[in-house]
Amino acid sequence: MKFTARQIALTLNGKVQGDPDIEVSSVSKIEKGEPGTLSFLANPAYTKYIYDTKASVVIVNEGFEPEHEISATLIRVKDAYSAFATLLEMYQQAKGRKTGISDKAAIDPSGKIGKDVYIGEFVVIGKNVIIGDRTLIYPNTVIGDNSRIGNDTCIYAGVKIYEDTVIGDQCTLHAGVVLGSDGFGFAPQEESDYKKVPQIGNVVLEDRVEIGANTTIDRATLGSTVIKRGVKLDNLIQVAHNVEIGENTVIAAQTGISGSTRIGKNCMIGGQVGIIGHLTIADGVMIAAQSGIGKSIKKEGEIVEGSPAFPVRDFKRAYIHFRRLESMAKRIDELEKKSESTEKTDE
Amino acid sequence: MKFTARQIALTLNGKVQGDPDIEVSSVSKIEKGEPGTLSFLANPAYTKYIYDTKASVVIVNEGFEPEHEISATLIRVKDAYSAFATLLEMYQQAKGRKTGISDKAAIDPSGKIGKDVYIGEFVVIGKNVIIGDRTLIYPNTVIGDNSRIGNDTCIYAGVKIYEDTVIGDQCTLHAGVVLGSDGFGFAPQEESDYKKVPQIGNVVLEDRVEIGANTTIDRATLGSTVIKRGVKLDNLIQVAHNVEIGENTVIAAQTGISGSTRIGKNCMIGGQVGIIGHLTIADGVMIAAQSGIGKSIKKEGEIVEGSPAFPVRDFKRAYIHFRRLESMAKRIDELEKKSESTEKTDE
Amino acid sequence: MKFTARQIALTLNGKVQGDPDIEVSSVSKIEKGEPGTLSFLANPAYTKYIYDTKASVVIVNEGFEPEHEISATLIRVKDAYSAFATLLEMYQQAKGRKTGISDKAAIDPSGKIGKDVYIGEFVVIGKNVIIGDRTLIYPNTVIGDNSRIGNDTCIYAGVKIYEDTVIGDQCTLHAGVVLGSDGFGFAPQEESDYKKVPQIGNVVLEDRVEIGANTTIDRATLGSTVIKRGVKLDNLIQVAHNVEIGENTVIAAQTGISGSTRIGKNCMIGGQVGIIGHLTIADGVMIAAQSGIGKSIKKEGEIVEGSPAFPVRDFKRAYIHFRRLESMAKRIDELEKKSESTEKTDE
Repeated sequence: MKFTARQIALTLNGKVQGDPDIEVSSVSKIEKGEPGTLSFLANPAYTKYIYDTKASVVIVNEGFEPEHEISATLIRVKDAYSAFATLLEMYQQAKGRKTGISDKAAIDPSGKIGKDVYIGEFVVIGKNVIIGDRTLIYPNTVIGDNSRIGNDTCIYAGVKIYEDTVIGDQCTLHAGVVLGSDGFGFAPQEESDYKKVPQIGNVVLEDRVEIGANTTIDRATLGSTVIKRGVKLDNLIQVAHNVEIGENTVIAAQTGISGSTRIGKNCMIGGQVGIIGHLTIADGVMIAAQSGIGKSIKKEGEIVEGSPAFPVRDFKRAYIHFRRLESMAKRIDELEKKSESTEKTDE
Repeated sequence: MKFTARQIALTLNGKVQGDPDIEVSSVSKIEKGEPGTLSFLANPAYTKYIYDTKASVVIVNEGFEPEHEISATLIRVKDAYSAFATLLEMYQQAKGRKTGISDKAAIDPSGKIGKDVYIGEFVVIGKNVIIGDRTLIYPNTVIGDNSRIGNDTCIYAGVKIYEDTVIGDQCTLHAGVVLGSDGFGFAPQEESDYKKVPQIGNVVLEDRVEIGANTTIDRATLGSTVIKRGVKLDNLIQVAHNVEIGENTVIAAQTGISGSTRIGKNCMIGGQVGIIGHLTIADGVMIAAQSGIGKSIKKEGEIVEGSPAFPVRDFKRAYIHFRRLESMAKRIDELEKKSESTEKTDE
Repeated sequence: MKFTARQIALTLNGKVQGDPDIEVSSVSKIEKGEPGTLSFLANPAYTKYIYDTKASVVIVNEGFEPEHEISATLIRVKDAYSAFATLLEMYQQAKGRKTGISDKAAIDPSGKIGKDVYIGEFVVIGKNVIIGDRTLIYPNTVIGDNSRIGNDTCIYAGVKIYEDTVIGDQCTLHAGVVLGSDGFGFAPQEESDYKKVPQIGNVVLEDRVEIGANTTIDRATLGSTVIKRGVKLDNLIQVAHNVEIGENTVIAAQTGISGSTRIGKNCMIGGQVGIIGHLTIADGVMIAAQSGIGKSIKKEGEIVEGSPAFPVRDFKRAYIHFRRLESMAKRIDELEKKSESTEKTDE
């Protein structure tokens, strides 16, 4: 299927600069563009590639000002990244989706399955489970008793959902995700043994939540571990019992959040961050990768780094001096020597 | 089902303060308590909630001294957290457990299955596997040839157990756990290639071990990777080949332990800690979250922090000064200026 | 089955020192050696065990010079670790391998399955999948549509492979691996919401790649996430979309690599390292465990440590002074006091 630059510009509400009749049939990365493909430029670090790209058409931000000549036809839009996402979405939708319920799935009849769902081979659906319309469940996924799943949600292969879990509409759970495992709660006993604290709460994902591959979210001891609307979690993240993550917060891979911590909305949290339990993180906070959060952050929009973390500007300054600590130590040695000789002179 | 405060106090060997006839039918968190529910107070950070909680009954430590009036009936016990765990356990047992062997499981007949077990759909049990009494195996779990699993053990959905694994009594393995994958061993060859070192040992879990979701434990190259009695591992932990973890040691999420390291008993290890290979960690050692352990810790009960880690008290002091490094640098600048001007004055 | 020291030396092209007719029937660790077993000594940290080991035969490096008498028979070879790996390989091959295609697997007939493959129970193989000769696929693994898998590759239980994935010859994928999950790409929208950027690329593993348990590799947004020939990844690693990892690079557990970063060949990367996106890491670079890489490393063979990382020698020096920061602060206090008193004296 071919599209002209003009047709694409119409779809994206953009303006063509160059040949409006040039045709493309697939998409490419700007640094590996081929004739007949469409590419995009959003990250300034890739601007250098636009002058030599062989892509026929490139989507750019409306304010983009080239420094040299460009052979590709440009389509100027308000937000190139978002416009490209729209095109990819159309491309993906054209590929179609999985349908039908496999007769190799084991579905307990006590529940309720919506319309136009896909349920793959060897899926296990427990008792009293409710599944919404157009929801996709890939092979070998297990859904525990009494769970409820909304409409238009996609659950990839090998996901493990414990009993009583609630999942909203338009969520995406990637392969290997675990929802509802027991929180890590043990009461110390005599003789160094531990008594397990049963975890009788559940996990609740609101609408439009995306959870990355092999991420684990523990059920609450009491009540719910809650992931609010629009939250995006990357791969291999750990969310402990009774945590609450606010709307549209985005968290990168391998971060861990300890029990009962509440994270605000619109936060951005880097990869491999650790947050201890029972804290409150304000709305809009940004946390640099590998930081360790040991106390609550109460100021909205605060940006922190370090382990333990403090304001990012202070961290970066302190770190510059950390790298030079040896020379700093030598300067102190020198000052001490001078000071001693001054003292001796004074005597 | 309703219980009076008096009945609960009897069960827990506690003392009622308030109305002994008040009834509760479910449990709640103290900060979200509702009439007719039972709650508990163990963590001092939550003490503030007890004065306003609507929970009808609250379990507290026997020494708890309220600062204001409390409307809830109190039950005073020796250890509120442990007592609450006991109640949750009774609550959970009342819900019942899974039973029966699914005819959709694939069980090799060469092994031996105990009494009153549960085996879910699409479970695969290899050759010569022995499974103890009352053990639960949730759907889509795979148990490799020659493995032995004890009594009263619970293995949740999608666990992958390689051949020759040994698991004791009363263990809990959460969804997605991998036991017995190959250790990471490669012998460098010419031309930068690597030869795989076959891993012919196994994994042994003793009794009362709990392993969190998606945690991975590699088999030994030779001999066994051993997790001793009472060890509790949180989610997404990596345990490399030939590691040994001592009795009742507790490790938080996302920690990694490299090959052949031996960890003592009763240790407490925080989240995202990294421990390099071939080390020995003494009994009762505590390691702060995100620490990096690069050499053996020989002193029992040592508490360390940092990457690389050193005694926690020294770390905390050093870190206070790290945060102020810029001002320290300025003070040195200042001292140098003065020193120079002194020298000039002296000339 | 028994072998004499002479037979083993012949196989390994080594020289016997001691009794060439002594027999062994299994293998052991040097510190736990038993009579009738064969062991090896490669890591110098274990040299102390060779003088007391009860193993009958020990493989050592040809240059090994004992400091005391040794009762075991030695076999001297060029590279003891590699020679031992060869023996383990023979040992493992003697145990045999899985064969046959389970009638409980769900295999779409549109694809093509090679000769002498093993496909376990409840494996799902999608449309148009091509699987090479002698490849092993353990139970409950899911292989998405249009994927291609080479010859002599081993895929353990519960692996999840998304559509369009390409896997070479002689690869090993451990249990719980996820290949081809969506990259973490979201375009910010108005009102703090995010639009998902569809990920239409794939994952490509070249030949001789090994991937550890529960490691996740995301598909590319466009093009391919590429893991080149001979790469070894440990457990619980995160590889984001469009990353490229060069030949024979080895990465330890729990490391994370962000989107579009290119790592050179023959690199050695420790555990729990974080590397941000869009970077280039030169060939032969070594990165210490828990380091954070925030900018490209252009110098081949560079060794770095720290978060953010810098050359390892500088890091180690700086860290020595970090540990002493409190005493450094006191020395500055002291200098300031003296400086003030000098000033006063001068007045």
